[in-house]
Amino acid sequence: MRALYWDGCALSVAPSYPTPRFPSRIEDGGSRIAGGADSRPSTERALVQVRLAGVCSTDLQIFKGYMGFKGVPGHEFVGSVMEGPAEFVGRRVVGEINFGCGACDACRRDLSRHCSKRTVMGILDADGAFAELVSVPVNNLHFVPENVSDEEAVFTEPLAAACEILTQIQLNPGDDVLVLGDGKLGNLCAQALRLTGAKISALGKHADKLASIKQAGVRTIQLDDWQPRLFDVVVEATGSASGLELALGAVRPRGTLILKSTIAGAHRVSLAPIVINEINVIGSRCGLFPDALDALAAKQVSVTPMIEKIYSLNDGLAAISHAARPGARKILLRP
Amino acid sequence: MRALYWDGCALSVAPSYPTPRFPSRIEDGGSRIAGGADSRPSTERALVQVRLAGVCSTDLQIFKGYMGFKGVPGHEFVGSVMEGPAEFVGRRVVGEINFGCGACDACRRDLSRHCSKRTVMGILDADGAFAELVSVPVNNLHFVPENVSDEEAVFTEPLAAACEILTQIQLNPGDDVLVLGDGKLGNLCAQALRLTGAKISALGKHADKLASIKQAGVRTIQLDDWQPRLFDVVVEATGSASGLELALGAVRPRGTLILKSTIAGAHRVSLAPIVINEINVIGSRCGLFPDALDALAAKQVSVTPMIEKIYSLNDGLAAISHAARPGARKILLRP
Repeated sequence: MRALYWDGCALSVAPSYPTPRFPSRIEDGGSRIAGGADSRPSTERALVQVRLAGVCSTDLQIFKGYMGFKGVPGHEFVGSVMEGPAEFVGRRVVGEINFGCGACDACRRDLSRHCSKRTVMGILDADGAFAELVSVPVNNLHFVPENVSDEEAVFTEPLAAACEILTQIQLNPGDDVLVLGDGKLGNLCAQALRLTGAKISALGKHADKLASIKQAGVRTIQLDDWQPRLFDVVVEATGSASGLELALGAVRPRGTLILKSTIAGAHRVSLAPIVINEINVIGSRCGLFPDALDALAAKQVSVTPMIEKIYSLNDGLAAISHAARPGARKILLRP
Repeated sequence: MRALYWDGCALSVAPSYPTPRFPSRIEDGGSRIAGGADSRPSTERALVQVRLAGVCSTDLQIFKGYMGFKGVPGHEFVGSVMEGPAEFVGRRVVGEINFGCGACDACRRDLSRHCSKRTVMGILDADGAFAELVSVPVNNLHFVPENVSDEEAVFTEPLAAACEILTQIQLNPGDDVLVLGDGKLGNLCAQALRLTGAKISALGKHADKLASIKQAGVRTIQLDDWQPRLFDVVVEATGSASGLELALGAVRPRGTLILKSTIAGAHRVSLAPIVINEINVIGSRCGLFPDALDALAAKQVSVTPMIEKIYSLNDGLAAISHAARPGARKILLRP
C-alpha cells in the first residue's frame, strides 16, 4: 500500500509500504460496542481504509524529532472498516489514538490514554493514518453519525482534545475565559468551551483566523489591541514559549491555566508567577471521542471553514510543507 | 531603633533606623478580634517589639535581587505588642505577612494574600522584622497560645505556608505523597501533610536533616538510594531547577505537583510532561495562621530541632551568611 514514511530524518512517499499486519480475529460472538464498559479484547483489531487524514502541529513537531518516532505518521483520520468484526465492516469510523494494554489500572478506569504501556498511532511505536490502510484496535473505533461529513469527522480527534478540558475543570456561565492562539487548536478550544456558556475571548495574531473564530460566536481580540487584564481561566494553545509567558500573566490569582500544546524541547520560563499567584496549571492532552462526535452531529461547532487544502497522498511531501507554512490552516490528505 | 537594612545592593546593620511610623489609632470601641470576619479597619496598626525572627530562603533570594526589595527584610517573627488596641498591648503575637487593602474582592474573601494592592512584610514595599520594632496591621496579628514557646512560634509563618497545601488539595489516607527537599520547608510540608493520614515520603540529600524528618514520623529516602517511581502527589520544596525536573518525573499521570518554592529568575525546563501526563501543577504560597498555631499548640509538629543557631541583631550579617551556607538549618535573630 501507499504511505508517507518518516525514517527519523526524512519523509518520503513509500509506494509499497507493508500492509498492516492484521491479527486473526478473536471470536467472542458478542454484540458489544466500541468504547463501552463491556468492550472487546484489547488485541482485536480492524483494518481501516483511510478516507481523509489531517495534518496536525504534533506531526510537524515529530518531523523535528519529537517523541523520536519512526514509521507512518498521522493520527487524525476518518475511514471505512475493510476487515474486522462483522458489525464494523463497511462502517464509517474515527479512532482514538492511544492503544492501551487493556489490562492495567489506567485502562480499566477508561484512561487507556494514560496506559504506561500504550502505543500511540503515528506518534509512539504504532503506524498512523498517512497511508491507504491503518490498523486500529476495535475498542478505539467510533461510528461516524450519518449527518457528519468526512470533512467534519476528520476533526474528531482535535475536537476531542479540546473537549478534554471540560472533563478536567468545571466552567460556569459567569466565568471569564481567554483562549490564547487563533490556530486550529485555539479555534476548537474556543468553540468547545463556548458550549458551557462561559464568556470566551480568543486572542490571536491573524485577522482571517480570528474572523473565522468570531463567526463561530466567540469574542476575539487582535494581539496588537491586547490590553492586559486578568481571566479566571486561560487556555494556552499557541505552542510557543512567548505564549506561555503571556498566558501566565493573564491568569488571576488562584485562577487556572490550561496547557494544551505540546512543545518539543526545554524552554526558558520563570515559574515564580505560578507560586506567587497560586495558579493551577493543568496539562490537557487527548480526549474521548463521543462528546466531539455529538457536538459535530448537533452542528454545535463549525470546523470545515478551517480546511485550507486537500492533497492526495502522492503529494504528501507538498502537503506537509504547506502545513508548516506560518499561518496555514488545516491541511488534509486523501489517500 | 536597630535594624538590618538592605539597600538593593548591600546589607548593613543600621543602629538608628527610623522607628516605624505609627498611624494614630482609629477608635472603633470594638471587642472584635484579629482575623475574624468582623475584623478591624485595615488601616489600624500595632507596633510590635520583635522577640525572635527567622531567616528564610526567600530572604536569601531577596539578597540576590528577588522582588527588587529595599528596606528592612524579615517576615518570620514572634513579638510583643507595644502600642495598639488595648486588648493587644502586652500580648505575644505572630503576624500574617500580606498587608491587603481591606477593600477589594480578594480581601473581602479572606484572600488578602492575593490583594493586588498588597504590601508584604520584608518582601514588597513594607519594612520587615529584622529590627527591634515592626509595624503590623492589627487584622494580621494572632495571639500565641501560652504553651507555644517563642522558638516554636517563630515557625508559624513557614508552617502556615506548609498548611496552605491542605486548603488547596484534598489528601486522603491512602494517597502516596512525595516531598522533595529535606530543608526547612520540606520538613514542615512533610509534617503538615502527615496530619492527613496520607503516606508521606521525604526525599533529600542530607542524612542529618532526613533523620530529623524521620524522627517526626515521616518515611525518608536518601537521594542516592532513590528508585524512581510514581506518586499521587509530589511537593517540590527544593527551590532548584533540577528538583523541578525530578518532581515532574515522579508524578503519576493525572497526579498533582505542588510548587512550594519561589525561585528567582527564569529556568530551562521542559513542560511537555505536564501536558502528556495531564499533570495538575498547583502553586502554593502563604497560608493562614490559625491551623499552624493549632498544630504547634497541640504539639502535632516538631520544629525546634530545626534551629541551628540564634544570633543577636548586631551580628545580623554573620547570621545571614550562616543561613546562606549549604545545608544550614534555621537561623534566628534576637533583637
